[in-house]
Amino acid sequence: MLDGKNIIGFKRSKRGSNSFKTINPILNIENETVYYEASSEEIQEAVSLAHQAYRTYAETSYKHRARFLNAIAEEIMALDQTLLDTYCSETGLPEGRAKGERGRTVNQLRMFAQILDEGSFVEASIDTAQPDRQPVPKVDLRKMMVPLGPVAVFGASNFPLAYSSAGGDTASALAAGCPVIVKGHPMHAGTGSMVSSAIIKAAKDTAMPEGVFSHLNSSGHEVGEVLLKNPLLKAVGFTGSIKGGRALFDLAAKRKEPIPVFAEMGSVNPVVLLPEAMKKEAEKWAKTIAQSITLGSGQFCTNPGILMGIKNSDLDCFIEILAKEINEVVPASMLHPVIADKYDDGRSQMQQQKGTSVVVEYSEKTKANVGRPAILKVSAAEFRENPKLHQEVFGPFSLLVECQNIEDLERAVSLLEGQLTASVIGTTEELRGYDHLLKQLETKVGRLIFNGVPTGVEVCASMHHGGPYPATTDSRFSAVGDDAIKRWLRPVCYQNCPDELLPASLQNSNPLQLLRRVDGTLTRAKL
Amino acid sequence: MLDGKNIIGFKRSKRGSNSFKTINPILNIENETVYYEASSEEIQEAVSLAHQAYRTYAETSYKHRARFLNAIAEEIMALDQTLLDTYCSETGLPEGRAKGERGRTVNQLRMFAQILDEGSFVEASIDTAQPDRQPVPKVDLRKMMVPLGPVAVFGASNFPLAYSSAGGDTASALAAGCPVIVKGHPMHAGTGSMVSSAIIKAAKDTAMPEGVFSHLNSSGHEVGEVLLKNPLLKAVGFTGSIKGGRALFDLAAKRKEPIPVFAEMGSVNPVVLLPEAMKKEAEKWAKTIAQSITLGSGQFCTNPGILMGIKNSDLDCFIEILAKEINEVVPASMLHPVIADKYDDGRSQMQQQKGTSVVVEYSEKTKANVGRPAILKVSAAEFRENPKLHQEVFGPFSLLVECQNIEDLERAVSLLEGQLTASVIGTTEELRGYDHLLKQLETKVGRLIFNGVPTGVEVCASMHHGGPYPATTDSRFSAVGDDAIKRWLRPVCYQNCPDELLPASLQNSNPLQLLRRVDGTLTRAKL
Repeated sequence: MLDGKNIIGFKRSKRGSNSFKTINPILNIENETVYYEASSEEIQEAVSLAHQAYRTYAETSYKHRARFLNAIAEEIMALDQTLLDTYCSETGLPEGRAKGERGRTVNQLRMFAQILDEGSFVEASIDTAQPDRQPVPKVDLRKMMVPLGPVAVFGASNFPLAYSSAGGDTASALAAGCPVIVKGHPMHAGTGSMVSSAIIKAAKDTAMPEGVFSHLNSSGHEVGEVLLKNPLLKAVGFTGSIKGGRALFDLAAKRKEPIPVFAEMGSVNPVVLLPEAMKKEAEKWAKTIAQSITLGSGQFCTNPGILMGIKNSDLDCFIEILAKEINEVVPASMLHPVIADKYDDGRSQMQQQKGTSVVVEYSEKTKANVGRPAILKVSAAEFRENPKLHQEVFGPFSLLVECQNIEDLERAVSLLEGQLTASVIGTTEELRGYDHLLKQLETKVGRLIFNGVPTGVEVCASMHHGGPYPATTDSRFSAVGDDAIKRWLRPVCYQNCPDELLPASLQNSNPLQLLRRVDGTLTRAKL
Repeated sequence: MLDGKNIIGFKRSKRGSNSFKTINPILNIENETVYYEASSEEIQEAVSLAHQAYRTYAETSYKHRARFLNAIAEEIMALDQTLLDTYCSETGLPEGRAKGERGRTVNQLRMFAQILDEGSFVEASIDTAQPDRQPVPKVDLRKMMVPLGPVAVFGASNFPLAYSSAGGDTASALAAGCPVIVKGHPMHAGTGSMVSSAIIKAAKDTAMPEGVFSHLNSSGHEVGEVLLKNPLLKAVGFTGSIKGGRALFDLAAKRKEPIPVFAEMGSVNPVVLLPEAMKKEAEKWAKTIAQSITLGSGQFCTNPGILMGIKNSDLDCFIEILAKEINEVVPASMLHPVIADKYDDGRSQMQQQKGTSVVVEYSEKTKANVGRPAILKVSAAEFRENPKLHQEVFGPFSLLVECQNIEDLERAVSLLEGQLTASVIGTTEELRGYDHLLKQLETKVGRLIFNGVPTGVEVCASMHHGGPYPATTDSRFSAVGDDAIKRWLRPVCYQNCPDELLPASLQNSNPLQLLRRVDGTLTRAKL
């Protein structure tokens, strides 16, 4: 089933000279299939096809697009055990996780299909003419969202299904009416390729134009750079490191025509432990947080990388139980050797920082590529002095910052960069007294969690998965949930357009029965 | 009344060593007042005050903010004739225009006050918890828009009131809850300073925090650059040239923390003249377009800078009447000598381009700084070959592109860059036959106008004043209308937050009676 080729429009193609293989991190051996990296020519062809497909695809009805997304979901499910096996062989993650992530992936596709079926995502707005208005007549103005154009999606190493070929970025961009070119992540090229084949099958079966989707193999940075420089490309979705995301952002900003880059990058997701909660529920929270830190070998953008508490005997008790819980977790393989090596490096660099000490580190000998959980601690005074301590260590790692008092804690919080999330653990009574801290955290984050852990990102309308830089390159948009579609849309206004020439969404008779803003009032009525 | 000082928070300040004066372009002499350019120290102080004011201001109730905006409108009206006189002395524009622009300015402030009074602009969204959901419980998630932080607004030379101190950018940013620092345009420093004083009076009268607004005098680029590099600044609004807007965009993209720049820049606003309309209504359209080209000496971002038609005797007739109409317009002063000089340069550079010929040029001797209207023409073949012909000449100028047929016209359109607007003049019958052209234009613009001219931008919910680069640096946002507020907001999500700790907009009882999305349904009901 896997031929290692790129998918350029509806064709499979291997015209480049570079090839690579994926790695089974548990066995620490290469998987069999040889993948052929996309050549510059293949990349340009994919973008040209996407550009050609753009107008046709943008003109498809929302219901037609919904059928396409649902068909993708079906085709992914039809890949069945082959997909799960490939996923596990390329990630070291257990089959349960593969199934869970597949579930999330198809649910996201179906969620956007529902959004399309309903149709009001185009935010239709109508201001009717007032020909008799003084001193000048008011013209008829109608506005709706239209797709930006061809979008590049960069596959995320830690979500081979939910944030790669047919993941959240692809699903939302296709829903918006934008053709998608995926730059596959090298470490799960097989999973990406299989899912991409499913997308192509769905595109053909639902009569979508060639170029609506392409999949490029890549072994490093080059393919992404060539892709991003193509003037026909209009937006980028990325999930990964700050370094990678910022490099794409910089490239996009330097183009003759700059384009938006939605990069969801690093985050330490601070968890603030308030004293009363530590006094009353240290054990419960130690267990919950230990699980959150080690879940999926800590390879989540919402992994809690910093814990902050006020130093006293209750916090000591929490630390003791946390250490015990962490020590009882059986360490698991990380996604691939590069991530495992980086994790080892990052952890040991943290240990070398002044003032840090080890709370717990899984000490038994482990197999290659296994991520050994570790918790360090440091005083708030040292934390304030050393920005290296504020950075993410991607893996099952957390740094506990011990503060002398609440002022000390607030000073530490004030130094944090933008985050996807912050969590506060405290009794309702004590939370009332920390208004200043809560407001301070709110300015730093996209999601503020009360008495919960940051891992586990619900896919729904009220989710916001984003945050101030460097959590993302654009704090105004979400990578998860209904509103993720907004990243790929822009408004167009039609002035005095004859009714029959208007898009259906804006016609007087409201043929799509959309919820529209008509002269200031939301209604599904016809004009 | 004018003291030439900067307004830093609630204080008037002149600590810099550079000074400058504004110019009366009609009399071609300097106005009296000496303005003191803001020093680096004053700039940093303004941003620090804005940063300090940010949390207090963001926490003000929407109704309180509405009172502030209405008070600004009142204070501007109270400036009365003094403001009108200062405006006219700094712009050369007639008093009627000053009154009209003042009307638009206070209406914009009042419009945003109404949006605040209603409150639903925060897009409150609630997904209630499902504790019994399998396999995992669903948490309670609530999301709303919050202000980005301190915003810099760059005064626009061509709208001393409506897009400067208390213009659309300031009104929308203040409405969003963002403190504003205005970098005044040097050529209307007096108008900007008077309006800024009105804002400060309104801020004090409505008990807004010091730092909610500051006004910096500037004679060139330096003040803006220092302002933009300040890490506490979170967004920028700009209206002006492509060169200026792009420079700010580049600076912002290079910051350690990049910030959004909403620059509304150049546009040639093509007007396509279809054959049937030329046959039937050449005279009507020639008159309307001549007025649009020369309105306000052509100093509008929506000025029609390119006309495109299919060469035949009807178009010749249109051209003849257009030339006659243009020649009958009494040329008026431009905003200041620099703009007048640039206009003369731009016009003469166009005349030097291969294949261009003069259709009409106001030839009588005029006073200094007067913008002499001119129309050139060129063949579509020459137009295609020479990108210089696609560029804006800011002033009462338009280039008519003569095409052999519709394919020729579509090829010319395909070469245009992103535009604020495009207009199509055609009978309803013939428009039906130009579906491909209309779709092509739609991909290039923010507003597509049917049988109308681009000048005259209605301020309402369905207006979109924006467009693909280089019309703006961010095609997803509008500089005019209700939705302009969206530029200054980002979502924050609260997970499992105790009801009493939630912002009022998200509390169960819906105390502000907002329209909210609750479990997928828009409602004003309480939970």
